[in-house]
Amino acid sequence: MKIEAVDFFYLAMPEITTEADGSQDALLVRVAGGGEVGWGECEASPLVSIAAFVTPMSHGVCRPVAASVLGRTVEGPQDIARLAAEVEYNSMDLLQAAHTWSGVEMALWDLLGKRRGEPVWRLLGYRASHRKVPYASVLFGDTAQETLERARRSRTDGFRAGKFGWGPIGRGTVEADADHFAAAREGLGADGILLVDVGQIFGENVERAAARVPALEASGAVWLEEPFAGSAYEAYGDLSRRLKGQGLKVAGGEAAHNTHMARHLIDFGGVGFIQIDCGRIGGIGPAKWVADYAAPRGVTYVNHTFTSHLALSASLQPYAGLAEHRICEFPAAPKPLALAFTANHLERDRNGEIAAPDAPGLGIAISPEGVRQYLVDAEIRVGGRTLYRTPSIG
Amino acid sequence: MKIEAVDFFYLAMPEITTEADGSQDALLVRVAGGGEVGWGECEASPLVSIAAFVTPMSHGVCRPVAASVLGRTVEGPQDIARLAAEVEYNSMDLLQAAHTWSGVEMALWDLLGKRRGEPVWRLLGYRASHRKVPYASVLFGDTAQETLERARRSRTDGFRAGKFGWGPIGRGTVEADADHFAAAREGLGADGILLVDVGQIFGENVERAAARVPALEASGAVWLEEPFAGSAYEAYGDLSRRLKGQGLKVAGGEAAHNTHMARHLIDFGGVGFIQIDCGRIGGIGPAKWVADYAAPRGVTYVNHTFTSHLALSASLQPYAGLAEHRICEFPAAPKPLALAFTANHLERDRNGEIAAPDAPGLGIAISPEGVRQYLVDAEIRVGGRTLYRTPSIG
Repeated sequence: MKIEAVDFFYLAMPEITTEADGSQDALLVRVAGGGEVGWGECEASPLVSIAAFVTPMSHGVCRPVAASVLGRTVEGPQDIARLAAEVEYNSMDLLQAAHTWSGVEMALWDLLGKRRGEPVWRLLGYRASHRKVPYASVLFGDTAQETLERARRSRTDGFRAGKFGWGPIGRGTVEADADHFAAAREGLGADGILLVDVGQIFGENVERAAARVPALEASGAVWLEEPFAGSAYEAYGDLSRRLKGQGLKVAGGEAAHNTHMARHLIDFGGVGFIQIDCGRIGGIGPAKWVADYAAPRGVTYVNHTFTSHLALSASLQPYAGLAEHRICEFPAAPKPLALAFTANHLERDRNGEIAAPDAPGLGIAISPEGVRQYLVDAEIRVGGRTLYRTPSIG
Repeated sequence: MKIEAVDFFYLAMPEITTEADGSQDALLVRVAGGGEVGWGECEASPLVSIAAFVTPMSHGVCRPVAASVLGRTVEGPQDIARLAAEVEYNSMDLLQAAHTWSGVEMALWDLLGKRRGEPVWRLLGYRASHRKVPYASVLFGDTAQETLERARRSRTDGFRAGKFGWGPIGRGTVEADADHFAAAREGLGADGILLVDVGQIFGENVERAAARVPALEASGAVWLEEPFAGSAYEAYGDLSRRLKGQGLKVAGGEAAHNTHMARHLIDFGGVGFIQIDCGRIGGIGPAKWVADYAAPRGVTYVNHTFTSHLALSASLQPYAGLAEHRICEFPAAPKPLALAFTANHLERDRNGEIAAPDAPGLGIAISPEGVRQYLVDAEIRVGGRTLYRTPSIG
């Protein structure tokens, strides 16, 4: 099958705020080939990722992503891996290429799965798609009381695991943060799985992160996520060594935009949980590589997903067959656009669990009407030529 | 001084080829504040880097670079560092931000130096700008004969050091590569400093790189540059250990788009030479951090510069005061645009050496006429608003 067309749909909420909520916009990718289409999704920022696909070539190793994709042939998983290697080499000087390629790669798996009538997880070599325990991913409140209410709500909504992120944590006192952790525990209940995400707030400062550890331990948190900048492996390693033997572990990995970064976070950063965003790391193939690397090393694989159910299905595929890797991120309160542009969603079963669909490709259909509702009109012109114009969803 | 305006000028040769020659286009940045302007240059790709400056915000940590720059106040070097930290945090999910910010950062140093009447290297804390031995940076020929002729030409042009890069190396046999290395040595002469750059051709394959080591040793090469992918620290470390005690050392670092990556190439990759491109790593400040980190560890700092003399001056500043770090990259045969858009150039003295200028800022003036000659007309529109249109150079 020849890759005949790649189209990008930039969706956005009417108003974008500064909260750390990645579901406020989306970049949907449609790949057409062999009479079928596949769908994928890139991580932000949409405009820059589109530009990386269409930009004029700068030189031999700074080519647009399109140059390694359009007109190429894909018959099986090994062809997707081959294209990934070509994008990496041909676009090595184009930083945004990894995000752009991620959505295209995802769409290629979807397309391949549809053509073969197989779910992607089976194409990856798994025999079963094991159920996962989704955690509601919500932001800390501005006050501990607000955090308590959000935790209660997520419990009422049927989540036995809850992740609380960003907000005021690390910006005030250790005591104020401790109040939030305690509030989250109270709201989730004694048997809830409590996860904490601080969004790189401590930079490389291990002491500031370590100062929060007693309160995290007291609240029974399972992990402390992204205490440091994505590549600060020394800081990760230092904190991980201090936690050795305790219940709390360090988590991280969403910033990984290649397999090297994820591997180094494991090898040098000592994380207990490696969290991969398929919309960033280069898609499903590299994410599966990370799962294969993590599992025998006693590191638990977790998806990172804060956007749509298309991204959610894609992010479950790389570890669908790993029965012991039980936790998954679930965007519990995304912005309306993230729910609108897919026609179906991954519903929780009566145990509150979800699984990568047993359906061809990624098993998620797109809603043209939902896309139209949030579609942004964009145009890029260079040297008198239109390189990009928002396509029609049909 | 308030940052009043940031303008991007996208320059390109009429025809861009797939050779690994980064001087075929350029992204020039003009920053205006306090009645003065400063100039900087981003590494490729221009369109994507412009998009990263103007893109609509996706969420709190995926903001356009502009959001952390425009209207901000800069009085001294510490303010530039503060803005760098803000860009890093506010744009952490925007991969291209590092390249975009690099040119802006460079321009801020230029502006600050002009306002204070001081060269940038003095603002960095150096007392002198030591002279460096420039190496002609040329591509390997298609044949060994062609490589020989290029080496002779660079010797005739007065270069006692020559770096040969890319081309056929690693794509054919070990013997064919050996012929190229020998031809380069013959052309440079017995006392020439021979440097070899293979542009990540071996991916992560240490054996394929190691197979070339005997021929590199026989030709007396000082370094083997970028044998592997930018983040393949394990491969770098493995090869470095095998070379221990030999004359040949591993070099790398141009792919570093933050200080972490450079540091890890030193700590985990064991490189003997760390090569920093100020147009990628975030500008002059982070590059100076790498020089400070490298020097006491016995690692030699080298600039990476394949474009203009504006980029060359910027790239010399971070190690201008390190007298022992003698070698510098010099774009010996850039495309005409790279020479055209600056009004002055760093001339070699009678010993064939150059130094960061003893002049305010970066000491390089822009040629409006040269900019006009290669200026590309570009426009980006989103949601009915024009986010970018090629500005006038005045």
